[in-house]
Amino acid sequence: MTEHSLWRFSRALHRAINERQFEDIEAAIDEDVDWAIFGPIDMFPFLGARRGKDAVLDVIRQIADNVRVRRFDRETIMLGVDQAASMLRFSLTALGQSKPISLRVAHFAQFKSGRLTSIPASASWWILSIWWSRCSASRSICRR
Amino acid sequence: MTEHSLWRFSRALHRAINERQFEDIEAAIDEDVDWAIFGPIDMFPFLGARRGKDAVLDVIRQIADNVRVRRFDRETIMLGVDQAASMLRFSLTALGQSKPISLRVAHFAQFKSGRLTSIPASASWWILSIWWSRCSASRSICRR
Repeated sequence: MTEHSLWRFSRALHRAINERQFEDIEAAIDEDVDWAIFGPIDMFPFLGARRGKDAVLDVIRQIADNVRVRRFDRETIMLGVDQAASMLRFSLTALGQSKPISLRVAHFAQFKSGRLTSIPASASWWILSIWWSRCSASRSICRR
Repeated sequence: MTEHSLWRFSRALHRAINERQFEDIEAAIDEDVDWAIFGPIDMFPFLGARRGKDAVLDVIRQIADNVRVRRFDRETIMLGVDQAASMLRFSLTALGQSKPISLRVAHFAQFKSGRLTSIPASASWWILSIWWSRCSASRSICRR
């Protein structure tokens, strides 16, 4: 039985963000990928829509420049043949800050030949907004 | 071919919110339903978790007291036998206000014997937060 593409993508993304190893995520993304994390892009430049592998790899590097994933729990999941939807609870650490950040993310992923072709996602940005206010106030690196 | 439970639930919820007709939604919800709309419950008392049909019907009435749905577009959907996940774009009107509100909602629904048993959902609350600030400033009814 073949592993679902979601697991490969999920491991690769985790490795990219936490270890800055981008080979696996590069191999797990389609050239014409549609990527979107809905949220206030004025506050967080790494949110919003990206099209194409290069742009998506760029934004994953930006995310890796800003946070580390301490823990995540998959609260809900639906798997289709080439689709997956899940709701996750993340515990993050902002680089340069000791304070943990918690947020909930819902995403819908579409794969083709094992590679990600589309992933709209939304997150609980009100928590991030509080974090951002604190970041700005303390002049840390988290808004760069 | 039987209609998926999501469509029945979705029509019933729309009817409850926009027409204040609660018979259909009452029949579409399991007695032990788990309901959660993740968000800032300090700002919006109709957010948060509810357990059981009575509590969920109460909160749907609260939502109907505060908003009308002008339009919604289902941007992404996954249907399983007794499951459904989707991301929707809503255009709402706050009662007592002419200004439209747009928000994106991701939800995961579980059904048993055609009735909703669980629905965790999250929405783009930063937009709602802006709306709430304006509401409070103009002393309208939208925080009641």
